[in-house]
Amino acid sequence: MNIQLLLTGHELMAGHIIDTNSVMIAQQFSEAGLFIDRKLTIGDKLESLIKEIRAMGAEADLLLINGGLGPTSDDLTAEALSAATGLPLEEHPLAMAHLNRWCSERQLELTAANRKQALLPAGVNIVANPVGTAVGFSCHFNNCLIVCTPGVPDELEQMLGSSIAALLRKHFPIRPNADCIRLQTYGIGESSLQELINAAIPNWPASVELGFRAQLPEVEVKLSIRSSADKAEQTHCLQLLKTVIGDYIFAENDSSLAATVVSRLTQQKKTLTIAESCTGGQIAARITGVAGASKVFEAGFVSYSDRIKRQLLGVSEQSLRSHGAVSREVAIQMAAGALRSADAELVIAVTGIAGPDGGSEQKPVGIVWIAWGDYQEIHSECLRFQGERHRIQQQVTACCLDLIRRKLDAITATPRYIEQRRWPGEIN
Amino acid sequence: MNIQLLLTGHELMAGHIIDTNSVMIAQQFSEAGLFIDRKLTIGDKLESLIKEIRAMGAEADLLLINGGLGPTSDDLTAEALSAATGLPLEEHPLAMAHLNRWCSERQLELTAANRKQALLPAGVNIVANPVGTAVGFSCHFNNCLIVCTPGVPDELEQMLGSSIAALLRKHFPIRPNADCIRLQTYGIGESSLQELINAAIPNWPASVELGFRAQLPEVEVKLSIRSSADKAEQTHCLQLLKTVIGDYIFAENDSSLAATVVSRLTQQKKTLTIAESCTGGQIAARITGVAGASKVFEAGFVSYSDRIKRQLLGVSEQSLRSHGAVSREVAIQMAAGALRSADAELVIAVTGIAGPDGGSEQKPVGIVWIAWGDYQEIHSECLRFQGERHRIQQQVTACCLDLIRRKLDAITATPRYIEQRRWPGEIN
Repeated sequence: MNIQLLLTGHELMAGHIIDTNSVMIAQQFSEAGLFIDRKLTIGDKLESLIKEIRAMGAEADLLLINGGLGPTSDDLTAEALSAATGLPLEEHPLAMAHLNRWCSERQLELTAANRKQALLPAGVNIVANPVGTAVGFSCHFNNCLIVCTPGVPDELEQMLGSSIAALLRKHFPIRPNADCIRLQTYGIGESSLQELINAAIPNWPASVELGFRAQLPEVEVKLSIRSSADKAEQTHCLQLLKTVIGDYIFAENDSSLAATVVSRLTQQKKTLTIAESCTGGQIAARITGVAGASKVFEAGFVSYSDRIKRQLLGVSEQSLRSHGAVSREVAIQMAAGALRSADAELVIAVTGIAGPDGGSEQKPVGIVWIAWGDYQEIHSECLRFQGERHRIQQQVTACCLDLIRRKLDAITATPRYIEQRRWPGEIN
Repeated sequence: MNIQLLLTGHELMAGHIIDTNSVMIAQQFSEAGLFIDRKLTIGDKLESLIKEIRAMGAEADLLLINGGLGPTSDDLTAEALSAATGLPLEEHPLAMAHLNRWCSERQLELTAANRKQALLPAGVNIVANPVGTAVGFSCHFNNCLIVCTPGVPDELEQMLGSSIAALLRKHFPIRPNADCIRLQTYGIGESSLQELINAAIPNWPASVELGFRAQLPEVEVKLSIRSSADKAEQTHCLQLLKTVIGDYIFAENDSSLAATVVSRLTQQKKTLTIAESCTGGQIAARITGVAGASKVFEAGFVSYSDRIKRQLLGVSEQSLRSHGAVSREVAIQMAAGALRSADAELVIAVTGIAGPDGGSEQKPVGIVWIAWGDYQEIHSECLRFQGERHRIQQQVTACCLDLIRRKLDAITATPRYIEQRRWPGEIN
């Protein structure tokens, strides 16, 4: 089955808006086991619309057109569909009734512009729009079902769950929810993941599709199957994957690193505090971005200057003078000070050089001392991160969140990313 | 001139990610006077890629392909371009050198998967990628310039402004950039801006194109002219705009709100401290995300619990008990405590309810008390923000940054956004 999507609108071409409609459509479709093969976006030009509708309609079994149903002169979908299919434009009685009802409910007068929204290719079926003035409509052209839908996201969303879902059920064999297991990982790049898996699992079954999605620094690993008969193989692959990269999987669903940390802290009834220098509040911001963070997070310290490190966290003047602010001693004292001051169970402290200034040959930009742990034990590492300021801060933040996640999961093995990033200039 | 865009990736078809790359591309192109005619998105299937590249290449003068340059087996752009154009795949010496340098800088070993990223159609030109492993590349096919670019948004962004811009300048008649004045504004929406301007400047000259780009909560206002002969009219419009919305313009270039605050603080040799409850470190993170922030920012406090508000910032138990943590008294005491503790010149403090829990009828989700000022005067307001947790935090953060910016710019007028958002449940 070939499914195509035609999105129309000048604003989509000019970079004025981000297309979220096609994401909604794809998600709704994929839950019904339908997969979009081809998605085309063009501006509001009549000839282009006619040409593309003809070409897509000749190739597809289902063509969903989104946008161009509004009342203004650049809304051309009905006109283009009429020209492409040869069905003349007529005032559709049901569309007209919908418009009349919509206006009378709001005590508005029906304008000529609105009236245009009832002028549809002859014989189309109406696809109800419970929210807006623009009704959707569908027709068969050759062997293709063409469905026209409004571009207003709220209206589309309502219709996808109701009238469009009903239309699809009527015309196509809908499969139950497609089976896809998603694993969230941190600490191994896409290519290394692929190699590790190839090496460890040479006989990967063809029925289980392995996919990756990098939203750096996290990478999502997906195991998809086309038929529920392959469920056992999928489960088997999941088990194999866990033996190979288990430590790097932080969640088996859509959870972010920060949400995973908050959820583990909540389960274990522990609180976390954070003392940040070079990340300047980003780690705290990620944690407090998660709903429910207030149960596990009471205090964070952004100690950018030496004075504040001393005053707020009790870092000794002696350590700052003899080792510098970016040193193991200072990181550990920051961690200890934060733990004491916040009276938390777990702590993470970072002090480093995010750049672009402040680096030296001995301590270049990207060097970060991280100290993390609890009252029993505080670990420390000096790592080097690459890139510009923003990227360094972002990577350090994710790394810190993962180190705390590993602590909470009682994983003692040293992760690859520590070994790869350890800065040899400092004795660890 | 016909410009087409081919986006590839299973994740774009399945609704797993929102396409922001094509928005970036369209914006960068439109600044150079280039407009995209047709945008096609397909999954990672070799035959489809070959077919579409052939068809688009035959029709377009410029075809930009985005995605599919990674190291994994579903990255197929080079292979598809090779098949479509008949140029055999070869290891490209410059791409290989880039990979070697990239890995050696990070003390990583070059994997076989990475090596695949240097296997390119014979004779292509390299389009430099300063950030990632995947180099871009370009070639001519019939009369079309085909440019292949990586799908990782950070990498694409860097390249659009540098190597891709240079390539386009070389091949196409690009309009100079100098003809566009950009103003960064905060506090008025796009449609209100348009209405204000229409009302205040009815005779807007046709030679000056007025444009908006919302990257909420900021809105960029653009004044573009097609010919340098219209420069005087453009300057005139700029002056008019400043009389109408002057207070809301925080920068006349690409500066963010946070960068503007850091730059003003630097100029005025002042330091800022921040005490955050509901924003949880986001304001500090925005400030410290700016290079050079360490000169103007020493300390930030994330005081999520009542205990920490007392202990760290000296908020009185009495105030917490009689007014609650989300109150004018507590916000002002947080500000005063932070100012004292950090010994800074300026302060901003926020305490509110970001949700989804914690709201009540009297103090619903979205209510925030903001206190800001200096040793002479601390202002305070109770505002209501809409949306879910993440959006509320983001809006509060921007609002706080703008209030500090207004203080630094000595603007005393109350902005519209304060008047519109003032929460009537609290006496201000």
